[in-house]
Amino acid sequence: MNPRLQKLRKLISEEKLDGVLISSLTNITYVSDFSGFTTEDRDAYLLITKKKQYIFTHPIYKEVAEKDFKDFILVEMKRSNPFSQAVKHIVEKENINKLGFEAFDLTVNDFEKLTKETNKKTFVPVDLLSKLRIIKDSKEIQKIKAACELGDKTFTFIYKKLKTGITEKELAVEIEYFIKRNGADISFDPIVAFGPNASQPHHIPDHTKLKKNNFVLFDFGTKLNNYCSDMTRTVFFGKATKEQSELYHAVLHAQQASVDYLKIELKNKRIVQASTIDQVGRDYLTSLGVSPFNHSSHGIGLNVHESPRLYPSSNDTMTNGMVFSIEPGTYEPGKYGIRIEDIFAIENEKLLQLTKAPSNFIEIKSTS
Amino acid sequence: MNPRLQKLRKLISEEKLDGVLISSLTNITYVSDFSGFTTEDRDAYLLITKKKQYIFTHPIYKEVAEKDFKDFILVEMKRSNPFSQAVKHIVEKENINKLGFEAFDLTVNDFEKLTKETNKKTFVPVDLLSKLRIIKDSKEIQKIKAACELGDKTFTFIYKKLKTGITEKELAVEIEYFIKRNGADISFDPIVAFGPNASQPHHIPDHTKLKKNNFVLFDFGTKLNNYCSDMTRTVFFGKATKEQSELYHAVLHAQQASVDYLKIELKNKRIVQASTIDQVGRDYLTSLGVSPFNHSSHGIGLNVHESPRLYPSSNDTMTNGMVFSIEPGTYEPGKYGIRIEDIFAIENEKLLQLTKAPSNFIEIKSTS
Repeated sequence: MNPRLQKLRKLISEEKLDGVLISSLTNITYVSDFSGFTTEDRDAYLLITKKKQYIFTHPIYKEVAEKDFKDFILVEMKRSNPFSQAVKHIVEKENINKLGFEAFDLTVNDFEKLTKETNKKTFVPVDLLSKLRIIKDSKEIQKIKAACELGDKTFTFIYKKLKTGITEKELAVEIEYFIKRNGADISFDPIVAFGPNASQPHHIPDHTKLKKNNFVLFDFGTKLNNYCSDMTRTVFFGKATKEQSELYHAVLHAQQASVDYLKIELKNKRIVQASTIDQVGRDYLTSLGVSPFNHSSHGIGLNVHESPRLYPSSNDTMTNGMVFSIEPGTYEPGKYGIRIEDIFAIENEKLLQLTKAPSNFIEIKSTS
Repeated sequence: MNPRLQKLRKLISEEKLDGVLISSLTNITYVSDFSGFTTEDRDAYLLITKKKQYIFTHPIYKEVAEKDFKDFILVEMKRSNPFSQAVKHIVEKENINKLGFEAFDLTVNDFEKLTKETNKKTFVPVDLLSKLRIIKDSKEIQKIKAACELGDKTFTFIYKKLKTGITEKELAVEIEYFIKRNGADISFDPIVAFGPNASQPHHIPDHTKLKKNNFVLFDFGTKLNNYCSDMTRTVFFGKATKEQSELYHAVLHAQQASVDYLKIELKNKRIVQASTIDQVGRDYLTSLGVSPFNHSSHGIGLNVHESPRLYPSSNDTMTNGMVFSIEPGTYEPGKYGIRIEDIFAIENEKLLQLTKAPSNFIEIKSTS
């Protein structure tokens, strides 16, 4: 029996539910390892009850369901057996009074269709799977590590392409092509930002041409065997001034401060609030008179942003099996943006760094 | 004043609403021409009332909003002014009793947040903008045409890459790279399917290696200046048998039958039901004893699939300004899939073909 289903059933009991309906694509992948459904349409739903598990899908996925969802009872969604009717049938047959559903994923229209035949009060909004996904097993950590290794290679490949006149967009396209030629996917649209463009943390690469004596920020991720990587590196194209070098090192040391803090707390087996990790970095920057970042680090796994949440209002605490970014930065509108992001995992109370690309200050001699 | 807002206000009146809340990203683009918000988060909403228009967005988009949403009143979403509160304020101030919202786009959670401060009965599910977007103006048709032209170039580029041993995935990556190097985006993940793999209309490119004497199906689209293209070509790698050539020509002539039918009906100014266009092609294939397709052609614009709907249960009728695919096919599980897809527009009661790549039967000499 699938161990993730066992854990999920334990949660279903704890939450006093009779079952849960899973609609989110990454949650379907988490439970089944299958990632072939499209985002275009609602290709499939899983319904997990205390004793049984069902997959609802369209007839064109029948073969797939029989092969990749062996333990599941297949229910074909057809005009003669619409989804709402099929759910009603199971709700009645299995005497379900409380059925969890993913309100963060289903649209209002989807929900109306789903509940057409069944009392709406049966449906309870839940996010059960994030409670499991927040803790990765060693196989998952290995997969994220492999994705990070490809990220490292991508960084080495791309920063060597810097030359006067090349555009952000050209570099972003090359990052994506490199990742895909290596058999992976991107985990999000790569960010490449020159000089002042980087002061927007989510800058969209445009036709800005590279000029010498500017910072260049790369933020990208790979997706390999369904698991994501994410990394940011900021290099300098040209010869940095003392002040520019100091700014870079301030960010680098802010990251180190967060890392050291976390390591020490783990070593001393103290409880670490997720929200404190970035705060250590922010405080470090502030102490130097450097303006701190207002974005947050984040957990990573099947999604590039997932639990644990590291933002200031988060209630998560850090434990074994968590995988997450630490990504301090500093931004000056009209001038620059500097960010350094690495991925870390906690295993056996130890902090492991999964991204390995060097983060020493790289100055690239400007040539055209 | 933005003419699309004027048309939208006319619809708001006709539907006896006091305003509409727009959340879907392509609808925001349609109203504003701005396409820089991410899908990751709810970056922005538009609220259009009878007299005023508002943009709700996060403080990091303030500059963007001031530049690209000049006619709009900017409302910053902050912790001190959450979205639900801001909407409530406008609902009360403008005395709004019925506010349309996009139930096909908002998640149940989004909707709960939105309606926290306002009576839920104020909110009415609508899809007003699809009623405008179904009719393209000549500038929109020009943009789709430009996207189709890049699609044509992509086809010429990619079919020449066919060689023994190359994989579907390698070709799919090359299609994407070509489109992006040409300054566009893809409108969906390219499909490349060899021989029997093509019998699944939505096959995901895998590591299957190309062998001689097989059909090769390419289905891909570009996105240029926000507008999509879409095309399918099926070529033969090797030397086709008489039967294989006949199958290809059956599909080609089925497409021609649909095109001819539509041209004649338009010329005679008769009302054409959207659902009949594919049916002409299906009937043609059936008359030859070739098994017809069960997928459907579709409208195209800011989304690769949008109105008009051409499936059998559609109630749309064809009129000037519509842009859509005609894409018959035939599939034999375990053996092959053949599909030919082109994009057409109706302007001044005339049918224009926007994709121009040749669809004559191409046989490619197999070399390794």
